[in-house]
Amino acid sequence: MNPLERFHAQELPRINRFLEDQAERMHVSVRPTVRHVFEAGGKRLRPILTILMARVLGCRDRDILPLACSLELLHSATLLHDDILDGATIRRGRQTAHTLFGATHTILVGDALLALANRLVAEYGVPALTRHLSEALLRTATGEIQEIAHLRDTDLAIATYYEIITGKTAFLIQAACRCGAVFAGAGDDLEEAAADFGLCLGIAFQLVDDALDYTSPSSVSGKPAASDLKEGKVTLPLLLFLADLDPGERRRLAEDFKQDRLSPEDLENLRETIVSGGYADKTREAAASYLARAETALAPFPASPERDMLALALGPMLDRKK
Amino acid sequence: MNPLERFHAQELPRINRFLEDQAERMHVSVRPTVRHVFEAGGKRLRPILTILMARVLGCRDRDILPLACSLELLHSATLLHDDILDGATIRRGRQTAHTLFGATHTILVGDALLALANRLVAEYGVPALTRHLSEALLRTATGEIQEIAHLRDTDLAIATYYEIITGKTAFLIQAACRCGAVFAGAGDDLEEAAADFGLCLGIAFQLVDDALDYTSPSSVSGKPAASDLKEGKVTLPLLLFLADLDPGERRRLAEDFKQDRLSPEDLENLRETIVSGGYADKTREAAASYLARAETALAPFPASPERDMLALALGPMLDRKK
Repeated sequence: MNPLERFHAQELPRINRFLEDQAERMHVSVRPTVRHVFEAGGKRLRPILTILMARVLGCRDRDILPLACSLELLHSATLLHDDILDGATIRRGRQTAHTLFGATHTILVGDALLALANRLVAEYGVPALTRHLSEALLRTATGEIQEIAHLRDTDLAIATYYEIITGKTAFLIQAACRCGAVFAGAGDDLEEAAADFGLCLGIAFQLVDDALDYTSPSSVSGKPAASDLKEGKVTLPLLLFLADLDPGERRRLAEDFKQDRLSPEDLENLRETIVSGGYADKTREAAASYLARAETALAPFPASPERDMLALALGPMLDRKK
Repeated sequence: MNPLERFHAQELPRINRFLEDQAERMHVSVRPTVRHVFEAGGKRLRPILTILMARVLGCRDRDILPLACSLELLHSATLLHDDILDGATIRRGRQTAHTLFGATHTILVGDALLALANRLVAEYGVPALTRHLSEALLRTATGEIQEIAHLRDTDLAIATYYEIITGKTAFLIQAACRCGAVFAGAGDDLEEAAADFGLCLGIAFQLVDDALDYTSPSSVSGKPAASDLKEGKVTLPLLLFLADLDPGERRRLAEDFKQDRLSPEDLENLRETIVSGGYADKTREAAASYLARAETALAPFPASPERDMLALALGPMLDRKK
């Protein structure tokens, strides 16, 4: 185990205990759904980042746990709502909440988790924390709305693609890092550096996700393979592939994709063509450049084991298989 | 026009302008849905209560508008999510957002409004405001979840019915009143009195709504008639009626209602029987007793034109036709 893995192994049980404890405090009609969400596990990336960022700045206050976990609660709430939107039946290898508990119930449990996250943070009496959290949620929802608006839009500009992934994924990871810095009493410069680190890490995270959607078999990812293509989501591998096609081919494929006329076999062939053409690899290369920017953002922080751990997080982010 | 009507006529345009301005600041992909929600109008009861309660306590700070409107934003967000749950196609005489813009998009616009409300309140830097708002939202969602859990439950205890309506409706109205008092710098006693006023008003409001669902024709309410019965919602008129039936009749009706075996004609006959039996009137009487409690809660406040206006709000609450 490297120091980051040791840190993760040590913090994870505390984070999970806190989340389970929150679930137990909720109303009996909400509890089973919330438990289902938490028991699905996950890396708890956002709380870990909040805690590490505060430690980098010398803060060892154990009272950071509600703040750190509020980021996970927000993330869980957006997953609950997302899975309904996507009609997803499987998440992390388990049935999604809305297929077990009903869509209407699940929408409301998402709302309850959003509210709980805000309440936990409000308890600190530090308005900046609430402000960053609400802003991140607003931007996350806006990013997801944009994503829906551009489903099957093969003319999507690459800049708009980045706007969407920044919205739907990076702002919440940014908030996790920024809130850790604010909690630790960072000055403006270091707060901005923390935010910049989180933003670049978040963009890279989603880029890798979008590459994995093309390359990772269902058995590893716990999600159906190539679900983005099936759902009509236009992500970077497809955009880069389309840009390299000659105009006639591009027009034909774009038209078929827009009209959802591609059979499962067509989609699987398309996926293979995109992967063998190196477009998933190119997406990972884009992620690598954001990870390099994230590493640069760490420079102003005082040298410490925790700063090294944040740097250690960047490599596996790129190499992950799910 | 009485003083309350004059006050309402004067504040309403400011509230609506603020809301429209917020809509314009949102991302272009969110804006049409948010405009649709705001243009549907409504009494803006919650912001009016926040402003009045602050005035009762001598606060004339015009900066209260973002706080007051954040309550309307939360309310709008819950309506967006509610209409999806209920499968409602009509609200305030207009098509509901999800039928025009799609359910998935509408869930996310609701989330964006929740986030915006929290952000507006966070700007004040008064943690108690954020705390009350998040707590109210958590309880509102929990109340709605309980309501779904008890659909077609003819064995619903009356105490649980009150718990549900307090959750889904009264806590947000309570928060509107409490936040007005907190904003005005009320001491603990007056803050509690404001909260008590709001809670009783909110319970009465929902009781009247539940009575109106039985008595108000669609042309007046802007909603389908007897939608609660059709949707399987067990509210006070039905509970009181069931309690008066002899055991055999009750068992038969309960069974048919549970299994959703009643035809539209059966439901219309049931509605008429409940109304002519006086059970909608009894529900209004229950509302009247909560309005009386709300009036009592006003006693500790200093005598002022605004306190009289709050008292003036109680009568029309009971007599309203939609």
